[in-house]
Amino acid sequence: MQNERPLILVANDDGIMAGGIRALVEAVAELGEVVVVAPNKPQSGMGHAITIGHPLRLTPSTVFGSDIFAYECSGTPADCIKLAQHYVLHDRSPDLVVSGINHGANSSISVLYSGTMSAAMEGAIEGYPSIGFSLCDFSHKADFSHTKKYVQNIVREVLTNGLPEGIALNVNIPALTADPIKGVRICRQSKGHWAEEFEERTDPYHKKYFWLTGKFVNQDPGQDTDEWALAENYVTIVPCQADLTAHHLLATLNQWSFE
Amino acid sequence: MQNERPLILVANDDGIMAGGIRALVEAVAELGEVVVVAPNKPQSGMGHAITIGHPLRLTPSTVFGSDIFAYECSGTPADCIKLAQHYVLHDRSPDLVVSGINHGANSSISVLYSGTMSAAMEGAIEGYPSIGFSLCDFSHKADFSHTKKYVQNIVREVLTNGLPEGIALNVNIPALTADPIKGVRICRQSKGHWAEEFEERTDPYHKKYFWLTGKFVNQDPGQDTDEWALAENYVTIVPCQADLTAHHLLATLNQWSFE
Repeated sequence: MQNERPLILVANDDGIMAGGIRALVEAVAELGEVVVVAPNKPQSGMGHAITIGHPLRLTPSTVFGSDIFAYECSGTPADCIKLAQHYVLHDRSPDLVVSGINHGANSSISVLYSGTMSAAMEGAIEGYPSIGFSLCDFSHKADFSHTKKYVQNIVREVLTNGLPEGIALNVNIPALTADPIKGVRICRQSKGHWAEEFEERTDPYHKKYFWLTGKFVNQDPGQDTDEWALAENYVTIVPCQADLTAHHLLATLNQWSFE
Repeated sequence: MQNERPLILVANDDGIMAGGIRALVEAVAELGEVVVVAPNKPQSGMGHAITIGHPLRLTPSTVFGSDIFAYECSGTPADCIKLAQHYVLHDRSPDLVVSGINHGANSSISVLYSGTMSAAMEGAIEGYPSIGFSLCDFSHKADFSHTKKYVQNIVREVLTNGLPEGIALNVNIPALTADPIKGVRICRQSKGHWAEEFEERTDPYHKKYFWLTGKFVNQDPGQDTDEWALAENYVTIVPCQADLTAHHLLATLNQWSFE
């Protein structure tokens, strides 16, 4: 590598114009050389979607000024990481992949639906230390001013210590309130689910349609979970891996008969 | 429940017109009462995407004949399960959620990108025993004739034994070849990744675009993995869970300093 500064690849799921990615770029630009490849439109809830059935576009972007090499991509967050690695960065490998800062929490089961975390997981799968950042404030005008310190401290630790292959950190930061943030906690993913409701409406042509709404239900009283710590006003870090195997069940299932 | 037969909810990601879901419906209709809610168009590679930014449509479908209650849905596989549960089934709970049969393997890391498995995982998150089925043949005209026996045997075992809450089985079935299938194996998810390449083209307006292509790379020599067993011509079952926490890393990360 010609450049001594670490190469940091930035993506998100709220799109390249979101306030959260601007806050993230500003925070990490002080720690390394930044390359941005982010969706050209919001991609919230895209989970680990990739684009198979139609082609992808990449367009250079100057939204972060002339010092930051940036592209907007027509695809999903996972597409952004793939295209960044294989086209934008060519033969260079990022020292770190960061995604976010998401407008809204990605704690507990939301990690599965999260485009922000899918970009981070994609980075981890490709073999790079990766971090997804989310702010617990869904507003488009969310205040990110308090996030910089935590983003920088966590990024510094990862650049210093590295991460085992295949690991992405899921970082959630409490919304800015009058109460001070108590610190950073390492947590496990809380067991919970979204209790969906659908709002049923009728269109001008007398046909029904549905809006997905819902409420998060935490089923996990553990004080070692991300939900508990966020409620207590901690920044939470959950180390995530792409192995979904329920290893503890293998022995039981081996006693079943499939003949 | 008025009906003594188990209620089986069927979804997929290749769309309601795919051959794979027809094979699945035919297999499970002999074991219970079937309700289908499936996408109205192919949704391959959708991962665990959900539809937030626009409304969803549900349309009754008669593609499975008059005995099967079926809807096509404008959303993703995960949307199908959510809408099925909250609108189509009303106050009834499925005894089993099945998804597929996918045209193409969903072994190893593909589980993360798979719309088929996202429908099954969504069922598991909602608290129902769930199974995703995939055939290792990407062809639209894939031959599913040999899958029925395995689908029925696995469904019977799950209906009999149940599954722990939050668990979905990821079942992959080898393509039909002259070699006999050796049996069913319980496996862990193989460690692997997709080595992506992008085919770069130029459109008639002289602008570049990219097609995502790629080749799966298995990094895991273990003989207890799904990749190993599929190569040996076994049907594979990987029990999957929605907890991404890398529990073994919690102690290490607790020694880091974020101040």
